[in-house]
Amino acid sequence: MPPSRLAVLGGTGQQGRGLAQRFARAGFPVIVGSRAPDRAAALVAGWPDGARPIATADYGAAIERATVVVLAVPFESVGRLLDDRRQQFRADALVVDVTVPVTFGQGGPALAEVPEGSAAQHIRARLPAHARLAATFKTVPAHLLGDIERPLDCDEFVCGDSAEARTEAAALVQAIAGLRPIDVGPLARARAIEHVTLLAIAINRRHRIADARFKVIGL
Amino acid sequence: MPPSRLAVLGGTGQQGRGLAQRFARAGFPVIVGSRAPDRAAALVAGWPDGARPIATADYGAAIERATVVVLAVPFESVGRLLDDRRQQFRADALVVDVTVPVTFGQGGPALAEVPEGSAAQHIRARLPAHARLAATFKTVPAHLLGDIERPLDCDEFVCGDSAEARTEAAALVQAIAGLRPIDVGPLARARAIEHVTLLAIAINRRHRIADARFKVIGL
Repeated sequence: MPPSRLAVLGGTGQQGRGLAQRFARAGFPVIVGSRAPDRAAALVAGWPDGARPIATADYGAAIERATVVVLAVPFESVGRLLDDRRQQFRADALVVDVTVPVTFGQGGPALAEVPEGSAAQHIRARLPAHARLAATFKTVPAHLLGDIERPLDCDEFVCGDSAEARTEAAALVQAIAGLRPIDVGPLARARAIEHVTLLAIAINRRHRIADARFKVIGL
Repeated sequence: MPPSRLAVLGGTGQQGRGLAQRFARAGFPVIVGSRAPDRAAALVAGWPDGARPIATADYGAAIERATVVVLAVPFESVGRLLDDRRQQFRADALVVDVTVPVTFGQGGPALAEVPEGSAAQHIRARLPAHARLAATFKTVPAHLLGDIERPLDCDEFVCGDSAEARTEAAALVQAIAGLRPIDVGPLARARAIEHVTLLAIAINRRHRIADARFKVIGL
């Protein structure tokens, strides 16, 4: 089986950039999907050489060509993106939600309330029924991910709306050097994963570090 | 300064038992507080010898004597306990919430909704104003904690309603061999810690293990 054609929407953002480059190094054909594909192409041209060249496209073209669509846009804009583009997902698409709805108010970082329960469930409600959804890459620090020479050395939680979606998403996590996927079950667990990311952000700020992340012990 | 006199309410339950014995081994004077102190005394008499003998008392007497009160009763009963006993906390008491409101329904383990936001905030609303509150020991597996010869080898998140409460609670975590305290900030972060425990339970069930726990990398 050829490797998935992998679109990273928001692929020039901090987290998307790291994912796109690390997937390219892992041998995947990668398309960076952007609202501004010309600007994205100029940025991508400046990235260090990976194992494969990285293509760029607008959101619609990236979605239509991809068997895996990684949603690395800010949480605030993902609903609108999906409302505009939901018809364009391939029938066999696996969608990977990496968003975390963090707010920075008076009490420091917090998770925004999401009516559906989590960012992943918010996205599920806006995807076509045929698209499969998993949530992962929510916790690995974007800052570290984007510094592509540095080892990641952590675990990454995976949940999803079917065992098959989780297995496929776990294989994507496993493909990136230094990450171990941890299957935590159904999509409703996404909120717990988002809370873990909140803890990482809180730990970073409180302890003046940048790359707090997690390993599961005993597994 | 003499070590805190430490009451573990619900100290014969799985989590309380492990905490009581490990604190006694760490040199703290420990009182197991129980609804049934005679039965508790018989149970405690059968525990392996610790560094210090462990006393037993009913809830009221344990609370009145303790400078640190660990709430290791089930979440469902902690509100009633505090409603009955709130007058009895010492003026300088540090209260340590270790509860996690987990339910086991059709979708597997989940966190119960708590109107105050988290178990810790539910408890805060029922404590006298003078009592300080921290939340920790929520994530270390009760099963492992109770097997007191086994090393814990993990991190334990701490939040609390003041820097002082967090510092004191972190010192208690640090006093137990194999645990590293991680300060994550204000009490409102307790929900995130409770979600981490949910993930540990989900990982245990899914991967047929018993002692999933966490370490923070990068700190």
